[in-house]
Amino acid sequence: MPKFMDLHDGFVGVTEDQLMEAHQRDLDVEADEGVHFEKAWLDPESGKVFCLSTGPDKEAVKRVHERAGHPTDQVYELSVEV
Amino acid sequence: MPKFMDLHDGFVGVTEDQLMEAHQRDLDVEADEGVHFEKAWLDPESGKVFCLSTGPDKEAVKRVHERAGHPTDQVYELSVEV
Repeated sequence: MPKFMDLHDGFVGVTEDQLMEAHQRDLDVEADEGVHFEKAWLDPESGKVFCLSTGPDKEAVKRVHERAGHPTDQVYELSVEV
Repeated sequence: MPKFMDLHDGFVGVTEDQLMEAHQRDLDVEADEGVHFEKAWLDPESGKVFCLSTGPDKEAVKRVHERAGHPTDQVYELSVEV
């Protein structure tokens, strides 16, 4: 199953509880799209969020984030890892 | 120990062997800086590399990548994860 990293901007000062609440909305709909989010990391200083997922393709990952209310165009397929 | 994600651009078309060779240069010097790289992922289509590490601070992560020959200013401290 392809693996993806996606990035979100604008999460400056967001807390762990707030990130979990936002991410829960992804988890609530991910199965509909055949996506599974493994992890989400936040740098609250820069406002960057990184999400690691598996799924059928980039578009499916984008659809999950759109439906969860935090769309992003920054989705990368991680076809190589070391 | 703080956790970090760093990004590199320009790795378009790079293979797994080439990424491992580049990343090995990080692994060869990381201990000097108290850094440990857990994982590196590549999207060869966009040329983006994502490295997940632990270490004392961002500057230490940057120094490892500088010494390995692939410097980056895109280092984010992941103080929140879900």
